[in-house]
Amino acid sequence: MMPDDSKTAYDGKQFDVVVETWGDTEREIVRHPGSVAIVAVDGDDRVTLVRQLREPARKELLELPAGTLEEGEEPLATAKRELEEECALTGGEWRELVRCWTSPGFLDERMTIFAAEGVEHGGEQKLDEDEDVELVTWPVGEIEQRLSELEDAKTIAGLLLYLRTR
Amino acid sequence: MMPDDSKTAYDGKQFDVVVETWGDTEREIVRHPGSVAIVAVDGDDRVTLVRQLREPARKELLELPAGTLEEGEEPLATAKRELEEECALTGGEWRELVRCWTSPGFLDERMTIFAAEGVEHGGEQKLDEDEDVELVTWPVGEIEQRLSELEDAKTIAGLLLYLRTR
Repeated sequence: MMPDDSKTAYDGKQFDVVVETWGDTEREIVRHPGSVAIVAVDGDDRVTLVRQLREPARKELLELPAGTLEEGEEPLATAKRELEEECALTGGEWRELVRCWTSPGFLDERMTIFAAEGVEHGGEQKLDEDEDVELVTWPVGEIEQRLSELEDAKTIAGLLLYLRTR
Repeated sequence: MMPDDSKTAYDGKQFDVVVETWGDTEREIVRHPGSVAIVAVDGDDRVTLVRQLREPARKELLELPAGTLEEGEEPLATAKRELEEECALTGGEWRELVRCWTSPGFLDERMTIFAAEGVEHGGEQKLDEDEDVELVTWPVGEIEQRLSELEDAKTIAGLLLYLRTR
């Protein structure tokens, strides 16, 4: 299914906005390259989360490590690159937990959430200049009772899916 | 925490885009009024989902009933209104499952997910002209084995949170 017509209404750096015509209906849509998030668990059965200022939320949030697809990049490659750069985690056995839409009423961001088990800590974070990311590890066995500390949809969905399939 | 400066870059119908200055950093942010989603379970222990064309995904998705906050509206009021209009479901015992951000890297949409237990079917759908929503009910006991049919992050998060707390 495709629109009858599409016009770019905003041409941004991280995303664009298009106004599409579907029959008699106009839809305003944020176009995004897509993204990844990772449930990364080490050999001591600890999951790594990241705490950082999220300007849209006006505060720091605790989230799964995540990143945006670069042009032509496969989600698995993005996820491995982001996990190494953001968390200095490498290796592990990888599998896909889900591909899901983050807010499909008006946003075309599709996110692939991976599990990576047996990842190894090593090296150092390679962050962009404007990134300031604190690493937080939780024992996997504590996730259930700490869910109320989470306010990010992908993190809740990813961790709960992971607990079902481990 | 607030930005040093903010400029409207796109003034839309459903959302705006602003470019904010935070110290040396510019952030491009989609501003959205916020939203709700509902895990609505009837007296026969069946949850109601909605299937509809989601233009950003180019296909139909199966999701929790959901809606956007109107100006000045409390999330609970939005949720009750949307559930009646979209699904013709009324009544029930309501509680909040979580308040979460749907994509907090660039979007300020905050979503409240409710559980409503003991809702009653009655009346008829009151949809907007451009809405075409098919109602689907699942026995709550089948959610676990049917998760792979879901591709929407709020729906996965909401149903799994509901299963933990019922």
